[in-house]
Amino acid sequence: MPHIDLPEGVPGIRSAMNYRPETAGPLNALAEVLLRDDNTLSRGDRELIAAYVSSLNDCFFCETSHSTFAALQLEGGMPFVDQVKRDPQHAPISDKLRALLAIARKVQAGGKSVTADDVGAAREQGATDTEIHDTVLIAAAFCMYNRYVDGLATWAPTDPGAYAEMGRRIVDRGYLAPVGAAAVPG
Amino acid sequence: MPHIDLPEGVPGIRSAMNYRPETAGPLNALAEVLLRDDNTLSRGDRELIAAYVSSLNDCFFCETSHSTFAALQLEGGMPFVDQVKRDPQHAPISDKLRALLAIARKVQAGGKSVTADDVGAAREQGATDTEIHDTVLIAAAFCMYNRYVDGLATWAPTDPGAYAEMGRRIVDRGYLAPVGAAAVPG
Repeated sequence: MPHIDLPEGVPGIRSAMNYRPETAGPLNALAEVLLRDDNTLSRGDRELIAAYVSSLNDCFFCETSHSTFAALQLEGGMPFVDQVKRDPQHAPISDKLRALLAIARKVQAGGKSVTADDVGAAREQGATDTEIHDTVLIAAAFCMYNRYVDGLATWAPTDPGAYAEMGRRIVDRGYLAPVGAAAVPG
Repeated sequence: MPHIDLPEGVPGIRSAMNYRPETAGPLNALAEVLLRDDNTLSRGDRELIAAYVSSLNDCFFCETSHSTFAALQLEGGMPFVDQVKRDPQHAPISDKLRALLAIARKVQAGGKSVTADDVGAAREQGATDTEIHDTVLIAAAFCMYNRYVDGLATWAPTDPGAYAEMGRRIVDRGYLAPVGAAAVPG
């Protein structure tokens, strides 16, 4: 049961956003620019970073959502996403993405964990400063979203269909589109 | 030295925001609504929560900034702010704020650490659901800002005067006001 009086039957972060639209605005705007705006990192790869950090933070709702959003936008779908989250070191991804995921993992542990060597390794694989910046901020932002979702004990659907439906909406229309039907059947 | 090519002489998060104005917009908008918009929690108390979480994350720039912003808006100034950060359990604050700081501490450790008992204790001291929501989100947001600032190894001034100057700007004009002179002498 959520810790505060959140709208019933609304999944995860969406229930907290419905409860407090004043803070939902910037939270959604940040997700849109980080995960969907023009970028040399693909939308799928950015969702993968989000899903990976959410898995490290053990946030079921965010991990399942962003894994779904990544799987919808990457070849290999969910088995590939699961493989990357489980073992990024050996997953069939570019060495650049591998180095960026290593930075994301450090950020999740704490900002000071990121070393010049971590950043140098990413740069050697062709990562730009903006890609490194965005990886750090995506990882940091999911340390916020994950704590927001779990710190309020929001309700997370267990039916994969609920995540698939959210995924179609995010992939088609993004984080700023109004949600047609607020309630998702549990 | 910062991990990426950030503007020189610009302190902390401001250098990362100048580097990437697309993400600075929602980051500043979130700080403004959480820390300054109308709220039953005072601006000083909200800055105190931000400073406390930044101290737990050992983020020098954010802790010093938000301690300064809190001290400028609370009776007792910096000695009081230092006392609260060091030992909130025995500091001369309301029992409601004490319970909210305990929730913030749990959020910093991880969202799942927050228990129904923690929230019940805050409610018993008169905290509303919105105050609990905002405390959780302020604490979660500073787990992001702190990681962003330290994950990029941004430059932090050591001169207290630099923070006092930032403090006057934030207290007078808030997080959305353009910064007149971008560079602060180091």
